[in-house]
Amino acid sequence: MDRPTFLIIAEGAFGPETSKTANSAIRYFPERVLGVLDSTAQGRTSQDVLGYGGAIPVVRTFAEGLALKPQAVLIGIAPAGGRLPPEWRGWLLEAIDRGIHIWSGLHTHLNDDAELAVRAKAKGVTITDARRPPADIPVSNGLAQDVDAYVVLTVGSDCNVGKMTAQLQLVDGLNARGVRTRFAATGQTGILIEGWGIAVDAVVADFIGGAAERLVLEAAKGADVVLVEGQGSLIHPAYSGVTLGLMHGAMPAGMIMCHQASREFIGDYSPGRKAWVPIPKLSELNRIYLDAMRLLRVSEFVGVALNTYDLSDAAAKAAIREVERDTGLPVTDPVRYSPEPLIAAIAAGHARWKASR
Amino acid sequence: MDRPTFLIIAEGAFGPETSKTANSAIRYFPERVLGVLDSTAQGRTSQDVLGYGGAIPVVRTFAEGLALKPQAVLIGIAPAGGRLPPEWRGWLLEAIDRGIHIWSGLHTHLNDDAELAVRAKAKGVTITDARRPPADIPVSNGLAQDVDAYVVLTVGSDCNVGKMTAQLQLVDGLNARGVRTRFAATGQTGILIEGWGIAVDAVVADFIGGAAERLVLEAAKGADVVLVEGQGSLIHPAYSGVTLGLMHGAMPAGMIMCHQASREFIGDYSPGRKAWVPIPKLSELNRIYLDAMRLLRVSEFVGVALNTYDLSDAAAKAAIREVERDTGLPVTDPVRYSPEPLIAAIAAGHARWKASR
Repeated sequence: MDRPTFLIIAEGAFGPETSKTANSAIRYFPERVLGVLDSTAQGRTSQDVLGYGGAIPVVRTFAEGLALKPQAVLIGIAPAGGRLPPEWRGWLLEAIDRGIHIWSGLHTHLNDDAELAVRAKAKGVTITDARRPPADIPVSNGLAQDVDAYVVLTVGSDCNVGKMTAQLQLVDGLNARGVRTRFAATGQTGILIEGWGIAVDAVVADFIGGAAERLVLEAAKGADVVLVEGQGSLIHPAYSGVTLGLMHGAMPAGMIMCHQASREFIGDYSPGRKAWVPIPKLSELNRIYLDAMRLLRVSEFVGVALNTYDLSDAAAKAAIREVERDTGLPVTDPVRYSPEPLIAAIAAGHARWKASR
Repeated sequence: MDRPTFLIIAEGAFGPETSKTANSAIRYFPERVLGVLDSTAQGRTSQDVLGYGGAIPVVRTFAEGLALKPQAVLIGIAPAGGRLPPEWRGWLLEAIDRGIHIWSGLHTHLNDDAELAVRAKAKGVTITDARRPPADIPVSNGLAQDVDAYVVLTVGSDCNVGKMTAQLQLVDGLNARGVRTRFAATGQTGILIEGWGIAVDAVVADFIGGAAERLVLEAAKGADVVLVEGQGSLIHPAYSGVTLGLMHGAMPAGMIMCHQASREFIGDYSPGRKAWVPIPKLSELNRIYLDAMRLLRVSEFVGVALNTYDLSDAAAKAAIREVERDTGLPVTDPVRYSPEPLIAAIAAGHARWKASR
């Protein structure tokens, strides 16, 4: 079943910044989301909690969720470390017993869980582990720098700033201009949306670059532009390795910096996190990224995607102007405002790229 | 069996730059290496092939190797990607049948190979996968920056330049000065030598930093200095992610740059590899490393370990002087010449570190 209807589990964490997979599902295929489970949620609908998603109900118990008759249960939050909270096991077993499929983006592959796997097999239910990488990824070899497509990677100041969302806002506009564009998903949510991809943070560390390379080689077939979903941040203490491996495997000719305008420290959206790594000015951060690419390939920033969802309209526009001044690049919030400045910048980057080859 | 005698398999690749695990075993515990299998080797002893290891014989067939009566077989080369060449399976099965234990640093865990695992169990033989990481590694949290020990990480211009070897040359000298020093192994060879460690390149990508953090927290107990074995290079297209993740998890206060003086391009020791990523001057490379740490912690270079094994004595000494001029740091080849300049630099770094806290 490729495109089932979902009950999303986001227990204890349904919110604008805490339930990334759930929120992306609601943003990108709301018609397939029947409800969201969170017994602690402040609101009765997705609209109440997120500000979008309309009347999609928030349910307080798993039984209420099952009453919505979903075809599949989607695990919609990714706890730090990506492991399955023990209390959810009962829900998943109950879903399987009722013939409901399971989709998961957790690091712990549910198919490796003997109890769940045996029960699913007995019931003829499919468990889809979006984060399970292919078994035969090679180490990267620099092949991605030779593709004919213009490869654009989103990079960021931090996790969870909108690196995937920014690109999904650009695909249609580029294709509408006649620039054949493909999105290459590198995380479980992107894979859920696109139906293909490789979760680069789930491969064995030596193969991060190889996974990114394979993804770009595949996505580049018949494409003018490949938009590669970025991960993490070069200055994030836990995920920087994934970020750099992805950069060096994907070999982007262009990059888009993604940042949440109100965020000052790495991880400061996360309650209890110490304010430790400051996010520098974006002109400085861009320099760090270009420096990390420089010896491998000449890359350029084509624009900045600024996430302003928690600012007033006036503050958002002021933030955009400030980043334009700081970086000299096209800047927009491609979700809140028009994505056109970034679409135009990528189209222009692609034209320069073609002319230079 | 913690410290068995070994027959080392280095088939087709026994040489100074192509059999890293084998060579380290020969360098660090030659008394336990009974022979090396390589049917293609140019020489009859380790001394002939490597220039060290004395009369350790090179054997042409597995049967000759078994005649040496090893207690264990060690897989002594790490093919790109780390996977088990199919033709070796027969050797390993034969070894198991004769009650000989197996040690492996391959990415493919031999314990996951049903045929080998079942046979080993039946014969009461142990298969040790040095590269199998613990199952419960967390994501990193910056905890390594709070340890009382002075943490020194070796970093490098490329893979296979001597990042582990440099540190192993320093441990005894530091301890002899009264600086309680521990080596923290991050790769299969270091683990083989030390008997503990975590192969950071074998963990799932999201947990590289967490693996390094755990290692430092453990090694720092009761130590004045922790020497963390470096991996890869920030400018290596395939392994840079592991390098940065290790840096951000280990949070070194000091770093030692490791470089092979004759090497001009990343991977140019590897036949057929395209000359693609140039290695910059070490002063420039040091800057790239410091820049990658800067926002997370202030770090410093304490010295340079220059691998000069393929140069004449005069050329080696000239190369050392040139790097001293370029970087302004203490420089030595700690294998060929005295490691004392680096030992003194770390002891001084540790003293500054203690005084500053």
